[in-house]
Amino acid sequence: MADSILVVTAHVGDFVWRCGGAMALHARRGVDVHLVCLSYGENGESNAAWQGGVQRDAVKALRRAEAQAAAAILGVASLDFHDLGDYPMPESADSIRRVSEALRRTRAQAVLTHPEHDPSNLDHCRTYEMVLRARMQAMAPGHGDDFVVPPQVLCFEPHQTELCGFKPNVLLDITEVWETKWQAMQAMPTQRNLWAYYERVALQRGAQAGRRGKSAGTRYGEAYQSIFPAVVAAFVG
Amino acid sequence: MADSILVVTAHVGDFVWRCGGAMALHARRGVDVHLVCLSYGENGESNAAWQGGVQRDAVKALRRAEAQAAAAILGVASLDFHDLGDYPMPESADSIRRVSEALRRTRAQAVLTHPEHDPSNLDHCRTYEMVLRARMQAMAPGHGDDFVVPPQVLCFEPHQTELCGFKPNVLLDITEVWETKWQAMQAMPTQRNLWAYYERVALQRGAQAGRRGKSAGTRYGEAYQSIFPAVVAAFVG
Amino acid sequence: MADSILVVTAHVGDFVWRCGGAMALHARRGVDVHLVCLSYGENGESNAAWQGGVQRDAVKALRRAEAQAAAAILGVASLDFHDLGDYPMPESADSIRRVSEALRRTRAQAVLTHPEHDPSNLDHCRTYEMVLRARMQAMAPGHGDDFVVPPQVLCFEPHQTELCGFKPNVLLDITEVWETKWQAMQAMPTQRNLWAYYERVALQRGAQAGRRGKSAGTRYGEAYQSIFPAVVAAFVG
Amino acid sequence: MADSILVVTAHVGDFVWRCGGAMALHARRGVDVHLVCLSYGENGESNAAWQGGVQRDAVKALRRAEAQAAAAILGVASLDFHDLGDYPMPESADSIRRVSEALRRTRAQAVLTHPEHDPSNLDHCRTYEMVLRARMQAMAPGHGDDFVVPPQVLCFEPHQTELCGFKPNVLLDITEVWETKWQAMQAMPTQRNLWAYYERVALQRGAQAGRRGKSAGTRYGEAYQSIFPAVVAAFVG
Amino acid sequence: MADSILVVTAHVGDFVWRCGGAMALHARRGVDVHLVCLSYGENGESNAAWQGGVQRDAVKALRRAEAQAAAAILGVASLDFHDLGDYPMPESADSIRRVSEALRRTRAQAVLTHPEHDPSNLDHCRTYEMVLRARMQAMAPGHGDDFVVPPQVLCFEPHQTELCGFKPNVLLDITEVWETKWQAMQAMPTQRNLWAYYERVALQRGAQAGRRGKSAGTRYGEAYQSIFPAVVAAFVG
Amino acid sequence: MADSILVVTAHVGDFVWRCGGAMALHARRGVDVHLVCLSYGENGESNAAWQGGVQRDAVKALRRAEAQAAAAILGVASLDFHDLGDYPMPESADSIRRVSEALRRTRAQAVLTHPEHDPSNLDHCRTYEMVLRARMQAMAPGHGDDFVVPPQVLCFEPHQTELCGFKPNVLLDITEVWETKWQAMQAMPTQRNLWAYYERVALQRGAQAGRRGKSAGTRYGEAYQSIFPAVVAAFVG
Repeated sequence: MADSILVVTAHVGDFVWRCGGAMALHARRGVDVHLVCLSYGENGESNAAWQGGVQRDAVKALRRAEAQAAAAILGVASLDFHDLGDYPMPESADSIRRVSEALRRTRAQAVLTHPEHDPSNLDHCRTYEMVLRARMQAMAPGHGDDFVVPPQVLCFEPHQTELCGFKPNVLLDITEVWETKWQAMQAMPTQRNLWAYYERVALQRGAQAGRRGKSAGTRYGEAYQSIFPAVVAAFVG
Repeated sequence: MADSILVVTAHVGDFVWRCGGAMALHARRGVDVHLVCLSYGENGESNAAWQGGVQRDAVKALRRAEAQAAAAILGVASLDFHDLGDYPMPESADSIRRVSEALRRTRAQAVLTHPEHDPSNLDHCRTYEMVLRARMQAMAPGHGDDFVVPPQVLCFEPHQTELCGFKPNVLLDITEVWETKWQAMQAMPTQRNLWAYYERVALQRGAQAGRRGKSAGTRYGEAYQSIFPAVVAAFVG
Repeated sequence: MADSILVVTAHVGDFVWRCGGAMALHARRGVDVHLVCLSYGENGESNAAWQGGVQRDAVKALRRAEAQAAAAILGVASLDFHDLGDYPMPESADSIRRVSEALRRTRAQAVLTHPEHDPSNLDHCRTYEMVLRARMQAMAPGHGDDFVVPPQVLCFEPHQTELCGFKPNVLLDITEVWETKWQAMQAMPTQRNLWAYYERVALQRGAQAGRRGKSAGTRYGEAYQSIFPAVVAAFVG
Repeated sequence: MADSILVVTAHVGDFVWRCGGAMALHARRGVDVHLVCLSYGENGESNAAWQGGVQRDAVKALRRAEAQAAAAILGVASLDFHDLGDYPMPESADSIRRVSEALRRTRAQAVLTHPEHDPSNLDHCRTYEMVLRARMQAMAPGHGDDFVVPPQVLCFEPHQTELCGFKPNVLLDITEVWETKWQAMQAMPTQRNLWAYYERVALQRGAQAGRRGKSAGTRYGEAYQSIFPAVVAAFVG
Repeated sequence: MADSILVVTAHVGDFVWRCGGAMALHARRGVDVHLVCLSYGENGESNAAWQGGVQRDAVKALRRAEAQAAAAILGVASLDFHDLGDYPMPESADSIRRVSEALRRTRAQAVLTHPEHDPSNLDHCRTYEMVLRARMQAMAPGHGDDFVVPPQVLCFEPHQTELCGFKPNVLLDITEVWETKWQAMQAMPTQRNLWAYYERVALQRGAQAGRRGKSAGTRYGEAYQSIFPAVVAAFVG
Repeated sequence: MADSILVVTAHVGDFVWRCGGAMALHARRGVDVHLVCLSYGENGESNAAWQGGVQRDAVKALRRAEAQAAAAILGVASLDFHDLGDYPMPESADSIRRVSEALRRTRAQAVLTHPEHDPSNLDHCRTYEMVLRARMQAMAPGHGDDFVVPPQVLCFEPHQTELCGFKPNVLLDITEVWETKWQAMQAMPTQRNLWAYYERVALQRGAQAGRRGKSAGTRYGEAYQSIFPAVVAAFVG
């Protein structure tokens, strides 16, 4: 069975800006990248789409198509929409169950999702909590004997890191897949107002990674905060 | 349209002790002050009223009348009771929607509410969370094209600040409206056990503000913690 | 009326590993020790029981019997199972009410429960929150005139303390009841994989307590974090 | 040998406002209360004394006399002035050694001093650090075989608690010695501007303690934060 | 006497990248902007200058000239170099005294300096501490009767905010002086490797401020964290 | 040039208990392991040696010999004693310089040292600070053109993790070198009181790592907290 990771986001756009580089990078290396979008972000993150009396279903269809296009560019292996609604997003035991089933099915070694805190966007916090509950459900023998070794959880970067208490301890070098991430970003024209912002985020993280890394060629990066201790076999060598 | 602020509290008494000075001060300056009380505090913050076989409805009516009297003294422009019940207070999607509508209707530039943490009073935490969810709903185009610029959120002082991790970064000089706040406090005889306590709170915050402020006349104050960065045009001058 | 404490745990095993020493110690001194287990831990903390096509009800019955046996060894005065389910555990207004009634009935001066945070086990966080809500309900005159002075809340040790932000400020010397705790642990063979782990935890806490304490004989300990300030009459003497 | 506590303050006034109740209470109960003032607070906490061309030595003598008078009222067993200077106070290896010797000589079971952080008064932080270094020196066999069991450290209340990250976990009921503390405060007329402020602090802490305590008579309190876990034999009973 | 602010940095470059906008903005509005550079940053922040056997004095002279040029562009009223050395920078009682004298002389209402924590650059932490000690010395009557009302301290943005625990609560709109800041940045060619990085920082902070602010024209910003509560007369209106 | 790591400890014993596994593991894999002990721990961590009128020099010689023996067992490439004294340890600019020279000479990619906070042992905090200052000095061109890419800093486990705010994010599997670590521990009979304690620490960390790791054979572990973000090329695969 191939290695795999699972990405769970609150709104369709999140995966592109926040971990599109990780998705493209792992897909390129043969890792299966699975994606769950809990909502279409139709209410609060589709501002440009709400023009001229458009209906909610049309906005949702538009964002769904954008997400599919971006996911295809990034090389996603599977894509699941839960359509929970947003701004605000409700807690959903059914979504928790579905994510737990995805973890069992994919045997993902890592889950990428939102960080724990964000006073400006509680949908992100709710997603984080649902992922942690799904992780519990996936590792419980009482929910089926295909239970899993609990995966690492890696939180990707929120819009305003300090406001969210986000403390990245991992910088991922995404230089080699930057062009792919950039194309995926452009497949989401509804949020084109974020293109330049997240290009700058990638450049800042690349600059920070470049100071620490061994490769002189690092130009673009993504930042992550791991929730659980990583088990390693050595520090160097 | 006039400037406005919105106050959202868990129980009817909270607005008087915690931000009555801010309410009176802004009302005096022509700012519309809107108030939402999510419950009457009938169960847990009306101890003196539970005498001699009184019924819950009578307690609620009493607290409602006190809140109306105190609000009138402070110069409140509108007052809405959600009657959610208390000790403990349930989460309510309907209340979130109503607060979001109040934000849209009033265009409040700031919301005053409880801080995030309080292990002795989870109704306060729940109110904070509902306010943040309502703020999201108010700024989402998908919930109506009268969406708002997201307002600042200012948390007022809890009963035991250190227990709640409350970190005030704003001290409001309420000296000029202290008499009004004191009258509003006395319009809540059910909680007369708090009068002296919150007079001392006001004096302590006044003393702290006096050390830092420019005006020698500061005697009474209120403390607030802003959740979002404030955008300013200069620091001095 | 006898002094009493109340223990509230998410899963049946928790009370043995985390506060079995405190339970035995207080019971031995004539303090009534009441116990509430919100679930049987059948899904996520009964791994060894899920063998050979066993049914959920059988697992629950097995864990219930183990809990009863362990509780009897520790000298528990009453034991209540809420059977909420686990991994994940839902919030339950009914359980909050039942715990609040237990607080009113027992007049417990302290509640022992899980700490606030645990990203690997959100059932523990939910239990903590439900306990704090029940504590509010128990102290509210509107829920009955047998309302209580709010009890101290003491959080016992989670499985990985640093991951949970657990900061113990109280070490309990359980040397004199260690044998009893050890027997209670052995009455839970379904989780025998934890025996050695929690023996070591007790030895580490004992060693830490021994450095600070006055008694040279301290060998076993348990760690707790109090949520509310303790009121004391003196520091020494 | 009598039980004893050691108080270490940055400036002469600190012991009265912050732990005068604890000092009087323990002295009354036969506990030896030893006091070290690292400076006279002559530069930054003697504002009223700097009138009419007074010289520094006169200010120091005045504050020394006030401290002696207040200490006598509180029942202090010994009083040591280090005269390190203030605003700012330097680190002093010699003072660390002298405090360590006081710990060895008095066998104090608890040290009362300033909390770790205070951006408005780094003399307080420096005192905290010096106390912790002295505590190490006192427990080290290499500095003499009269080494001690390391005492608890209890931080008393700073002027603005939230600014200092002060988290009290112990409230001391000082009602029975309030009159003595009040007299000691009045023995420090140079800082009479603080009398009313710290009377209110005592009333607020008394009110908070009264809510939690068993005695209905609690009116005055002091708040403390313990640095090290306390070893206890039971929670109740 | 004109309003004034004081900027204190560890190395000569810091003022340009971190608060050059605030400096230009206030100078343009008639506020006196005073600047203290504790070192020339010759050892650790002048990498491009260490070529071809250059001597330390030449590097220092080069950086001094760059700082003077950048300061002139920003409209600085006075500039003081302490030449303490860097990487690492020692603590200096003499520098603390000089900064305290600058505070007395200028009556600065705000001090802009580095934040408290930075594990990658302890010179910044030391500067913060020295500023807080100087602030104490400046407000102490015992150091001269020209003592000051203690100024606000505003920490500017470090290189990697999350690593430093930097929590900005103030965003300054520097759009109108961006060109001036950019010119000042270019007057420091020794650190040209930082030009693009800090242009992006300004754009990110501008985008964040634009979301919250009232002016549609906000494009560039700077972020600050205030250490002491601000005393305000109103929230809106 | 071989890969290398640098270990810097406050007292001679620290390296064995806290990172002896990492040292043995890396040495076995051909990584050069360099060790600096800032003091012999003669005053505060050699209790068993202070018997019968022994002189300080004899204690230091004894601990030096033990450290050399333990280091040899672990496969250390170089060992440097700074003899700064302990309980308390002074700050030393000379030691900072020497550590910075060791970083330049060894090109260590990671430094293992004490965590930032420990109220019971400020020698550990001072060591952490000196290491961070040495790291700055090592990366500064002004101190020599053999300046280094700044290494990662990994803090090893303190005696009481929660007291120190220690948050491990890396668990190292040391099962394969446990016997070697155990032998090194036994080469330090002066601190034999710690043998069982740190064997249990290793077993607890091993159990925690085993839950997360891929290898079923993990029995012993060590915990570390990285200070700077790690730059990685992928999360899995």
